[in-house]
Amino acid sequence: MIIDCHGHYTTEPAKHLAFRQAQIAAAQGSAGPPSYPALQDDEIRASIAENQLRLLRQRGADLTIFSPRAAGMGHHVGDEAVSLAWARASNDLIARVVALFPDNFIGVCQLPQSPGVSIANSVGELRRCVQELGFVGCNLNPDPSGGFWTGLPLTDRAWYPFFEAMVELDVPAMIHVSGSCNACFHTTGAHYLNADTTAFMQFLQGDLFKDFPTLRFIIPHGGGAVPYHWGRFRGLADMLKKPPLAEHVMHNVYFDTCVYHQAGIDLLFRVIGVDNILFGSEMFGAVRGIDPESGHAFDDTKRYIDTLDLTEIDRRKVMELNARRVYPRLDAALRARGL
Amino acid sequence: MIIDCHGHYTTEPAKHLAFRQAQIAAAQGSAGPPSYPALQDDEIRASIAENQLRLLRQRGADLTIFSPRAAGMGHHVGDEAVSLAWARASNDLIARVVALFPDNFIGVCQLPQSPGVSIANSVGELRRCVQELGFVGCNLNPDPSGGFWTGLPLTDRAWYPFFEAMVELDVPAMIHVSGSCNACFHTTGAHYLNADTTAFMQFLQGDLFKDFPTLRFIIPHGGGAVPYHWGRFRGLADMLKKPPLAEHVMHNVYFDTCVYHQAGIDLLFRVIGVDNILFGSEMFGAVRGIDPESGHAFDDTKRYIDTLDLTEIDRRKVMELNARRVYPRLDAALRARGL
Repeated sequence: MIIDCHGHYTTEPAKHLAFRQAQIAAAQGSAGPPSYPALQDDEIRASIAENQLRLLRQRGADLTIFSPRAAGMGHHVGDEAVSLAWARASNDLIARVVALFPDNFIGVCQLPQSPGVSIANSVGELRRCVQELGFVGCNLNPDPSGGFWTGLPLTDRAWYPFFEAMVELDVPAMIHVSGSCNACFHTTGAHYLNADTTAFMQFLQGDLFKDFPTLRFIIPHGGGAVPYHWGRFRGLADMLKKPPLAEHVMHNVYFDTCVYHQAGIDLLFRVIGVDNILFGSEMFGAVRGIDPESGHAFDDTKRYIDTLDLTEIDRRKVMELNARRVYPRLDAALRARGL
Repeated sequence: MIIDCHGHYTTEPAKHLAFRQAQIAAAQGSAGPPSYPALQDDEIRASIAENQLRLLRQRGADLTIFSPRAAGMGHHVGDEAVSLAWARASNDLIARVVALFPDNFIGVCQLPQSPGVSIANSVGELRRCVQELGFVGCNLNPDPSGGFWTGLPLTDRAWYPFFEAMVELDVPAMIHVSGSCNACFHTTGAHYLNADTTAFMQFLQGDLFKDFPTLRFIIPHGGGAVPYHWGRFRGLADMLKKPPLAEHVMHNVYFDTCVYHQAGIDLLFRVIGVDNILFGSEMFGAVRGIDPESGHAFDDTKRYIDTLDLTEIDRRKVMELNARRVYPRLDAALRARGL
């Protein structure tokens, strides 16, 4: 079985996006809060079948860990109530996708984060998604300000109430910022990668995993700049008098394979152990289109991994077993189906 | 000849740092602006001879393109007058190092940037350093706010007066942020790398080099996350309907080799052409100490390059010729000495 740990619903029905537009207009005071539109199963089915599901099958994967569009979370838009209404609507929609295609998708939730609002207020939606909707994890935004980084590092105790809930529910978080409203940062070309690097360095600087030894994070996009600068980070750990990264961080942090060329994937596997790598493609995500150098889609990351000289067990770890270990509720759901 | 394009004066005499502390205190209103202390040549000589010069020789390089400590620029501290006094003092000190060790160091200047102040106001100090002190380039801070990114992208016309001066003087800029005052960003473990990635993506998004075909930037730290995600950036250029990166950006942008492990250097040379790579070590910089895996200093980047299978001419490009091409005033200075 092949599990893609990183998929977003980037082909949402137009009505869902229209709801968000109306919600933003309402937040700006030009209208009242909209009500969520009636969506037929067929609209949802069509948006998936011709897109993610088609490519999932074509590229030879089985199941995608699926969450709302990351750039669309927009935690910086409006206030906490706006974020909550939008998170609920987006998560409910993911639940409908999963209900329609239970063999191919499993849910991960968006949180109702809002700048300056305690992350404790996101615990309720996490619980609802995990306990009522059967989701297996969440996307945690380390910068709900949308590119100004006005909050606190992930190692600050302000985040602890949420981490306590993650540990209790036994779900991991993918560290994922949303759209950038800072003109300096292109969303997918700068803000995403910067956030990945930033989060890793926060973990390196802090001692979060002493307090939460079972807390687990996936840092997407191949870990941002981290594997490329692995020597720098090993050296910084030493300078900051921290234990080696293998001990200090790598029992709790995993990287996906959303790196869109062979040389990058080769580097990732050269420096990061296979126990810390989860197959992911982010399809349909930041980069769509065919790489003229390879003749294949940039984000068909399975192709790059297929070329690697891995043992069969190592390959299974990356393609399936690590995801089942990092997302125990996914593993339980699969086992319940005899998989 | 081997030219290290990236060295900072991180072993400054204590009196120089004390001046800065007094200046910060003055900016906070607790004292009047300090006057610069008398520094003996011997103090400066000692701070270099036992440090950068010793390692330069030990590691087999000849000349370092040398600038004030990057984390010390602190453009976010105080106002424009504070930044100007500090930049002048720091640049004058670099000029003294160069005067004492003309065979081994050549100057690059710090700019008197200040958040919200026009970059046009930095042209005067650039001119002074290039025309009076014999400097060959500058360090340009894309985020003088110190980690909040409250300014405009480098492609905005607000930066043009400075780029016009760079073109007129025929000097390049290294894109280099300073210390982070944002608790989310560790200075050398996140902010530096993020800024490198951010600047590259700004160039990709914009069309700056259509307006300034001879403008040249060095993006340090091996280009941040860029080479590791080269497929992502090639794909983004395609999605944004820009020409291929080789045409659109790579006539004007260069990466240094400040990547502190063999796997990272191997990747850099695999994806970036040798015409766009300049040898650099950032010694003494972000990471000091011995890598237990290699038994050598993390930042002894020449060792990693020495292992590469490069032709003799390609090796000379990376170690010397590209630097002479990107910094024409360096080339002229060397030629004047028959080098």
